[in-house]
Amino acid sequence: MNIGIIGLGLIGGSLARDLSNAGWRVAGSDADRASLAAAMDSGAVQAELADEPGELDLIVIAVPVRSALDVVRQIGERIPESAGTVVTDVGSTKRSVIEAAVGAGLGRRFVGGHPMAGDDRSGWATARSGLFRGAPVWLCPAPGAKDFAVRRVERLWAVVGGRTERIDPAAHDRRMAFASHLPQVTASALAAAMDAAGVAPGDLGPGGRDTTRLAGSDPDLWSDIVLDNCDELRPAVAALIERLRALQRGMDSADRRAVRTWLAAAGTWSGRVPAGR
Amino acid sequence: MNIGIIGLGLIGGSLARDLSNAGWRVAGSDADRASLAAAMDSGAVQAELADEPGELDLIVIAVPVRSALDVVRQIGERIPESAGTVVTDVGSTKRSVIEAAVGAGLGRRFVGGHPMAGDDRSGWATARSGLFRGAPVWLCPAPGAKDFAVRRVERLWAVVGGRTERIDPAAHDRRMAFASHLPQVTASALAAAMDAAGVAPGDLGPGGRDTTRLAGSDPDLWSDIVLDNCDELRPAVAALIERLRALQRGMDSADRRAVRTWLAAAGTWSGRVPAGR
Repeated sequence: MNIGIIGLGLIGGSLARDLSNAGWRVAGSDADRASLAAAMDSGAVQAELADEPGELDLIVIAVPVRSALDVVRQIGERIPESAGTVVTDVGSTKRSVIEAAVGAGLGRRFVGGHPMAGDDRSGWATARSGLFRGAPVWLCPAPGAKDFAVRRVERLWAVVGGRTERIDPAAHDRRMAFASHLPQVTASALAAAMDAAGVAPGDLGPGGRDTTRLAGSDPDLWSDIVLDNCDELRPAVAALIERLRALQRGMDSADRRAVRTWLAAAGTWSGRVPAGR
Repeated sequence: MNIGIIGLGLIGGSLARDLSNAGWRVAGSDADRASLAAAMDSGAVQAELADEPGELDLIVIAVPVRSALDVVRQIGERIPESAGTVVTDVGSTKRSVIEAAVGAGLGRRFVGGHPMAGDDRSGWATARSGLFRGAPVWLCPAPGAKDFAVRRVERLWAVVGGRTERIDPAAHDRRMAFASHLPQVTASALAAAMDAAGVAPGDLGPGGRDTTRLAGSDPDLWSDIVLDNCDELRPAVAALIERLRALQRGMDSADRRAVRTWLAAAGTWSGRVPAGR
């Protein structure tokens, strides 16, 4: 397979490493020339994407959400449908990129993707083999996407060990608001509250460190995601605030039973506290 | 040194393991007889505390915060000051236990302690060697505590690799409200918000898992801590809610710059995003 990867950060770079190890031919590009050079030096990327004259089987857009919309439009202008190139992405929101793909005339060969892997780091230097092993990968075919396009993207993720599952783009974005975007902004809010109280990262124990780890994530990447998905994230943040208010009420009335029930419900969700305890 | 440890859970049990490895004689007790038997079988505990006729150099109270207050009172009644036994604890709040110790006539030989180690697990089965290596340990001598008592508790933590630092009990409890108790209740609130939205632990990526890990903590242990420290935790929760509201305002006005600044402030705190970026 000939694959092009646009953006050689944590996700794109890790894909390049795993796919080239699996014998795929990887062409790459990155806004940062040094990242591209390092990726080519490492052997994870064999060619510069701009130099690729031939037909690519697959293009992976692995740039932040907002830039991805522009890249989708550019691909729609430059690559004719007759080329048969399938296009996918790795962004944390799916509705907007699929709309852009349809608008750019790519609908029949665009399959949105979202691997739930990675962490608070970013950039080529953090890319590594095996990042996607066992990771859930959401796939959102554009309306009208051809079967061959979906199968090609499924094959991509199978090669690197991801577990693909199809989902409707709106359902995806709603779910991610709770499963991914809310944890991110919660960690940031917690870190800022600590900061204002004069508590530094070095003052934390293991639990505090875990809970604030995401606060170090890239603010450019995440401000894109927050705004792109704010219709879904707003109610998620409101739900979190309401839950914290319920705890405040328990503390206000020194109601030990209410506080315990409040804590135990979360423990039951986590699988660590038996239901009804 | 002859030491008595009351409560052989994650903290007390791990102390028993490290101290017996270091050649200390450890007597133990636990409300759960099976835990005591297992600790004695393992060699971490050499005797049952109730059977110890002789003088103990040090007693460590390692039971949940609320029970610790009762244990302090019982020790005050049963062990005469002439015995020279120093008493310490490991709880996550310090004002209430020091008040109880002073009230029980233990003031001159009570030194409150709080190791910032452990995780969301609890019980003897989770106790392990090396838990305290490099961990910060806060010490709050009771008003009027003798120097020899403080030195003995410092020695205890030095033997297991903790880094002790003295702090005023009120300052400790305020700091822990932000550094430890707020992360705990935030993880619980986040988990409950996910639960209500139909998102399960298995739906999370690495970041979501980190951020909700504490949700599995023991609700009995934590309802004690929350209520014991609610004077300090209430404003901490209010600060978190206010921070989340600021994000809501940024999303309401689709103000990318405000959202980015909001995220970047937390990143700067974490040391991962340069200041002013």
